[in-house]
Amino acid sequence: MSTSNSLRSLNISNISPHVKEAKYAVRGELAVRSEEYRAKLAKGDASLPFDQVISANIGNPQQLDQKPITFFRQVLSLIEYPPLLEKEDVLLNQLGYKKDVIARAKWLLKQVGSVGAYSASAGAVGIKNSIAKFLEQRDGFSADTKDIYLSAGASSGVNTLLHIICASPNTGVLVPIPQYPLYTASLAVLNAKCVPYYLDESKNWGTDLGAIKDAYKKAVAEGIDVRAIVIINPGNPTGASLTEEDIKGVIDFAAQEKLVVMADEVYQTNVFTVKFTSFKAMLRTLQKEDAEKYKNVELVSLHSISKGMVGECGHRGGYFELCGFDPEVVEQIYKFVSISLCAPVVGQCLVEMMVNPPQEGDESYELYKQEWDGIFSGLKKRATALNDAFKQMEGVECGEPQGSMYLFPTITLPPKAVEAAKDEGRAADEFYCSRLLNATGVCVVAGSGFGQKENTYHFRTTFLAPGTEWVGRITKFHKEFMDEFAE
Amino acid sequence: MSTSNSLRSLNISNISPHVKEAKYAVRGELAVRSEEYRAKLAKGDASLPFDQVISANIGNPQQLDQKPITFFRQVLSLIEYPPLLEKEDVLLNQLGYKKDVIARAKWLLKQVGSVGAYSASAGAVGIKNSIAKFLEQRDGFSADTKDIYLSAGASSGVNTLLHIICASPNTGVLVPIPQYPLYTASLAVLNAKCVPYYLDESKNWGTDLGAIKDAYKKAVAEGIDVRAIVIINPGNPTGASLTEEDIKGVIDFAAQEKLVVMADEVYQTNVFTVKFTSFKAMLRTLQKEDAEKYKNVELVSLHSISKGMVGECGHRGGYFELCGFDPEVVEQIYKFVSISLCAPVVGQCLVEMMVNPPQEGDESYELYKQEWDGIFSGLKKRATALNDAFKQMEGVECGEPQGSMYLFPTITLPPKAVEAAKDEGRAADEFYCSRLLNATGVCVVAGSGFGQKENTYHFRTTFLAPGTEWVGRITKFHKEFMDEFAE
Repeated sequence: MSTSNSLRSLNISNISPHVKEAKYAVRGELAVRSEEYRAKLAKGDASLPFDQVISANIGNPQQLDQKPITFFRQVLSLIEYPPLLEKEDVLLNQLGYKKDVIARAKWLLKQVGSVGAYSASAGAVGIKNSIAKFLEQRDGFSADTKDIYLSAGASSGVNTLLHIICASPNTGVLVPIPQYPLYTASLAVLNAKCVPYYLDESKNWGTDLGAIKDAYKKAVAEGIDVRAIVIINPGNPTGASLTEEDIKGVIDFAAQEKLVVMADEVYQTNVFTVKFTSFKAMLRTLQKEDAEKYKNVELVSLHSISKGMVGECGHRGGYFELCGFDPEVVEQIYKFVSISLCAPVVGQCLVEMMVNPPQEGDESYELYKQEWDGIFSGLKKRATALNDAFKQMEGVECGEPQGSMYLFPTITLPPKAVEAAKDEGRAADEFYCSRLLNATGVCVVAGSGFGQKENTYHFRTTFLAPGTEWVGRITKFHKEFMDEFAE
Repeated sequence: MSTSNSLRSLNISNISPHVKEAKYAVRGELAVRSEEYRAKLAKGDASLPFDQVISANIGNPQQLDQKPITFFRQVLSLIEYPPLLEKEDVLLNQLGYKKDVIARAKWLLKQVGSVGAYSASAGAVGIKNSIAKFLEQRDGFSADTKDIYLSAGASSGVNTLLHIICASPNTGVLVPIPQYPLYTASLAVLNAKCVPYYLDESKNWGTDLGAIKDAYKKAVAEGIDVRAIVIINPGNPTGASLTEEDIKGVIDFAAQEKLVVMADEVYQTNVFTVKFTSFKAMLRTLQKEDAEKYKNVELVSLHSISKGMVGECGHRGGYFELCGFDPEVVEQIYKFVSISLCAPVVGQCLVEMMVNPPQEGDESYELYKQEWDGIFSGLKKRATALNDAFKQMEGVECGEPQGSMYLFPTITLPPKAVEAAKDEGRAADEFYCSRLLNATGVCVVAGSGFGQKENTYHFRTTFLAPGTEWVGRITKFHKEFMDEFAE
């Protein structure tokens, strides 16, 4: 018992054990250290072996190079300071605003009153109407405004749903491994069970229905009450996109075992290789084919303004749509979200513009399209360049970039490095990433932060940073590391 | 077992019992109904006996009449669309922006990069520096940037702290009754124990140290592990402000029993009668007098942009400051907030401007001061007018308005009304508020939503709505209600 224990109300031994258990490496020790390095550099400290920190640990597009979409931000400037709308002439003729910007700002203000006012708990109705329209166009199936909930990014939506689902320490949720650690961290905080199912690295991190079924059976045999399955599509950290057949397989399985499907679809526009298919579209297609079999499938799909070409994560906006939930359960979801009042209203407005951007013929369309396409092709180019660099590195293997904002290469580490890591009390890939940060200022996240099969090592890096200089730094470090720990 | 139970994963009997147990009347049944009435009116439905809904159930200043502060919103317009900064000439000469607005926007952008980017988990460092400076000026004691955490409103800060504190179903937290139901709702969700202590209505809802001690002793005798005490100062729903002696008493008690003091100080600028004293200032004063006795007191104080003359609740911004916490506990708080990434960055910028507004001599000062004072005196006037109306109403008693945004009158209801409520399965004050809404379109919250002594009845109403017409509607309804249920 430390001295502190007897002096204060709270100490490490008596606070919530569930919070303690949660792990969130994306913003863990290395991220904190990278910020210390950044602060040192800003103060002119020349003692570090690099002159710039690259935060490749987190998908934070606008921290790196991605510019906001002009239409979005022009509208936001007007709704933040509505008296500008009285100067239409100045806006149009001297500041380069277009008429559709002004019209959208006026429309949004009509929906929310003031962006400084709380909206209804589940979000402003007019904005939810736009989301419903977007879903109808995207999927070809009807969507209902009352099933839509605005949230502060997708994370807050996940938090809401898991709070409802997790009824006891025995509640289990199937989670892909590797996964974005929000899921395991939230389940730890909620004192519920993560039921891991492994993605198939040999098939470029594809979803393996066999692995899902095995994980489920094993958990049920252990007495776990498995209630839901999480799918991240496109994948984080892997970028892998599910095929239509995979999606159907998951829905079939969920229908059979009565599992809530949580479809994290925040990277739906970050796809390079296959066309994105939403779980909602597939569910409705299946329901048309066999209403009886699929009618009670519970699906929640989540989306966000943080990723894609929007990249407005600092604004904290997102939504989720509920399909097939019991109305009494929906009431509890509503109550739960109402306790935190409402999602940030500016974030809600950005969601509206994301789902209802300028259309061909609108005055802002051309610039919007040009910006959108520029960001998309820039991301693809960077992903390819980074992957090309990995191909040159000894012991590093990485599938072709498929989507999201990340690459997740395997690294084969020399036994001496694994030993050295053990001596430091670290996982071997964490040891590698720590060394990488110290040598290059590039911050990535070790595979152990996302989960991986035993004795395999990975790291996740975003491909958001511009230029190739930082990639060169990684290549150089890697060679030196491999040399240092060679047999 | 309903049919649904066997068909779906989730039903009302198998979801989280803790979420089910939580109550949050501020946005409960009546609030939902009031929104339905508003939608009906918007559609031109003339069947209702009123032509306007007044949402007096929630402190939402800008939904009613309160205008945003010009300086704040001008700065936000620039940081949302930074290319405007290249048109300084247009801003100054045609749009009425001042130089200090432009300077602040540039400075904030330097701190956050882009408002579309995630900040550090606990908030942008430059903004935390401004908060520390504000605290030093307000309290006359030093404040450390590293102790400050930006949050999405104070609610999210409370959620963080309670997650850390609540270690088991046996953890108890002292909560004033009546209270803002965020506290009881969060404790229910976290499956911990609310230990209620009653405020003293006979002393205009003052904090009664004797009641706190009795509540504590009783809880400890029942085996509850009491860890913290919540103080809402100025009070919600009561508006009562603690005297310096009260504050000292609470800190003494916390020091003696080793309790975390959670000081919810979001209404610190909404005070009409006494000068606001912060818990931090009192704690540091006491520590100067007797370092040994007070050195380990753990205090967290919370503030927000939602209330006061700022009233920017839709932007979801706030912060908390930790004093005296164990560093290992602080690490867990940091990890917990990092899981939800960061507070909305625009909200963070508003926090910065709230704590660092234009100063005398700055170009925007005069307008800022005029707007601030206008809102303050408007609120005081409305509070007084509403209270005057209550004085005329039979069976309604209300102390002089002291602060916050609410009045919380006692209503003495005729036995026949209590009976009629019972027949409907409602608390008597809920019955009254439901009738009030149906008759007048004015939505208030029954005292049972905040907690009250048995067989006493109250309601909470904001005094934000402009004009007196809606007050007249209440007076008329009240008379009719009392007549209807007279013996």
